[in-house]
Amino acid sequence: MANPARPPRIAVLKYGGSSVADADRIRAVAAKVAARCQSGERIVVVVSAMGKTTNRLIDLAADVSGNSSGYKREMDMLMATGEQVSAALLAMALRDLGCDALSMNAYQIGMLTTDAYGGARIRDIDVGRIRRELDARGVVVATGFQGVAENGDLTTLGRGGSDTSAIAVAAALRCPCEIYSDVDGVYACDPRIIPDAKKLEYVTYEEMLEMASSGAKVLHSRGVEIADKQQVELYCGSTFSDERGTRIVKNLPEWLEHPVVTGVAVDTDQIKVNLRGLPEDVHLYTRVFNELAVRCINLDMITIVSEGGEAAVTFSVIRGDVGMVRPALEAALQGLSGWSMNVDGDVAKVSAIGVGMQAASGVAGRFFGALERARIDVLGATTSEIKIAVLVPRAQAQSAADALMTEFDRKVEK
Amino acid sequence: MANPARPPRIAVLKYGGSSVADADRIRAVAAKVAARCQSGERIVVVVSAMGKTTNRLIDLAADVSGNSSGYKREMDMLMATGEQVSAALLAMALRDLGCDALSMNAYQIGMLTTDAYGGARIRDIDVGRIRRELDARGVVVATGFQGVAENGDLTTLGRGGSDTSAIAVAAALRCPCEIYSDVDGVYACDPRIIPDAKKLEYVTYEEMLEMASSGAKVLHSRGVEIADKQQVELYCGSTFSDERGTRIVKNLPEWLEHPVVTGVAVDTDQIKVNLRGLPEDVHLYTRVFNELAVRCINLDMITIVSEGGEAAVTFSVIRGDVGMVRPALEAALQGLSGWSMNVDGDVAKVSAIGVGMQAASGVAGRFFGALERARIDVLGATTSEIKIAVLVPRAQAQSAADALMTEFDRKVEK
Repeated sequence: MANPARPPRIAVLKYGGSSVADADRIRAVAAKVAARCQSGERIVVVVSAMGKTTNRLIDLAADVSGNSSGYKREMDMLMATGEQVSAALLAMALRDLGCDALSMNAYQIGMLTTDAYGGARIRDIDVGRIRRELDARGVVVATGFQGVAENGDLTTLGRGGSDTSAIAVAAALRCPCEIYSDVDGVYACDPRIIPDAKKLEYVTYEEMLEMASSGAKVLHSRGVEIADKQQVELYCGSTFSDERGTRIVKNLPEWLEHPVVTGVAVDTDQIKVNLRGLPEDVHLYTRVFNELAVRCINLDMITIVSEGGEAAVTFSVIRGDVGMVRPALEAALQGLSGWSMNVDGDVAKVSAIGVGMQAASGVAGRFFGALERARIDVLGATTSEIKIAVLVPRAQAQSAADALMTEFDRKVEK
Repeated sequence: MANPARPPRIAVLKYGGSSVADADRIRAVAAKVAARCQSGERIVVVVSAMGKTTNRLIDLAADVSGNSSGYKREMDMLMATGEQVSAALLAMALRDLGCDALSMNAYQIGMLTTDAYGGARIRDIDVGRIRRELDARGVVVATGFQGVAENGDLTTLGRGGSDTSAIAVAAALRCPCEIYSDVDGVYACDPRIIPDAKKLEYVTYEEMLEMASSGAKVLHSRGVEIADKQQVELYCGSTFSDERGTRIVKNLPEWLEHPVVTGVAVDTDQIKVNLRGLPEDVHLYTRVFNELAVRCINLDMITIVSEGGEAAVTFSVIRGDVGMVRPALEAALQGLSGWSMNVDGDVAKVSAIGVGMQAASGVAGRFFGALERARIDVLGATTSEIKIAVLVPRAQAQSAADALMTEFDRKVEK
């Protein structure tokens, strides 16, 4: 029994699309949530659309209009129905189990966003009604992924949007957030690349952010940023197994032996751009980077090598942005001749990430030594306080990750 | 070209579920609407959910919960997604045709209703945003069937809800309303019963209300009531044929030769209840009718026959209410003995309706004469100023309707 003298514990639980993909899974999720409610907790469930619903809606729109993806406002209106369906169904399943659940859409949870349709940012959450309903019923089911712009239009939050919704609601309620999916936690490396990667019991916000931006497909960085700023306790676990998942924390617990490297991320969505025959001129580099920046092209792995008055600039961009690179360079280098641009799509970025690097010495030596022994060709390298990243030929990405995982003891012991 | 000195004509066009059942039909509807916009009209389109969407959502809910139909609030949350999908898709199709269309859901069109989930009543419409968007764009696509209760919950308007939405929006905008479906107008009798029934060019609100409440499956009476009260010009036509449809008007035009009978309605959803062995006592009848009324059981075709101090009361109720009749009677007749109740489900109500009856004489004679020649057994009869209705054995309903249609010249001439 909950102690009436103590305010009841509140938690936000987020369930992804595969967790609510059909009627059986919805009932299974309801059983998990009901058990928590009945032990005295107050629960906000945040749900994604059922399984393949989002793709089905996209296909339907494409059937109607060849330009559908350009009608971002209407696409958001369409897509927002997906979470409303799963929220209503989960509320029904919870009521069957004796929980007085209520579904709530973006209007009802007061999820105010910008009007950047398809990729809106959360501006504010008015959790007044959530709090009232939680007090009255103990459980509400809220739609993830969607918000409402100031003019009343529905918006969606873009990739990783439901995680972001859940974390933002938890921040507003000042309670922990648990993210459930078909993956049972955060691994030291994507198990599809390194099958015997260790599962992490703890990872810091900072490491999660670096891993997300280094290509690891775990929690989306926007949600983690909010969790970090607003001090939301985060947990990632499996919907249907009882395996312990991963806690995302501000600082690793004192008693934990801190690893030097926490995880290794592989990003195959990178293109290397090589620019040759430039005069050695810092002002020129600035113009190049500015022209790329105004086009919102994110650069990574920048290296500048100059010799004998001639410079070569190398950087990587994400695959989707590569088409905008040449126009940017042409604008920046207008009037100059003799320069050439070379694009290499067969590259990957491999990064080792860990807050433990700050305290350890000799990490770079171990890192490059491991790659050398594995005969990896390093095409470029950058470092930050908690990360070392290299650009390698795509065909060597798996071997590079494997060498680093072994070197830094990130595999499960056999 | 529209005359800029004159305010542009506004119209509400409502398209039912079969009119937007798939991508092809949505594009075809868009073409019709776009042509109207491009000729200078401002158009509000009100849409139902696509074809079988509503049934699909009901099935999905039934898969999740055996009690789903009892969770009326959650069912409304679920069902309201159907119109949001079709509205967004139609807006996209319109944009492909050069119309700057915008979809709007119940929140955005300000459709305020009671919180009677599953059968909410419209309380108010704030058409401010519709007007602004119409001025800016010329066309908006609004969701039918759904509303928002004062607490922000989604509601649905029940049977015929999208017609009601469209007529209410037209009333708020003080403009005409055109209802499009797969039927090309209102017929003097359901063509599935009388295949050569005349299509009506005009019908009065009053006749439509009587026809709807007499079992004709045309416009739902709630919408017609609003149109009548708020003087909304109504038109019913086919989505995909250019056949002229039916105008629903306050008064038939002067130049039109008014028929005596406008239409014949057949209602097979009736049950006859016969109550015998009551003492002749008006106070007792009142108690019976009151007990039925508090249970919201609508009575029709009431006859009371008394002889030698003993009375028999006969009335009809709609099939779905029959289970509540005996408890009501037991409550009303508590302490009395010797009465018995008999239920006959094999009956139908056949009604002849026409504002022309008020001016014509000998209508009842023609009505019963026609039934007599067709050897119809009349089990009960009631009349109002514009209607004569009889209860007949269900097996004779078609013959009775046919006899009346012929007698009152309501069939297409061969």
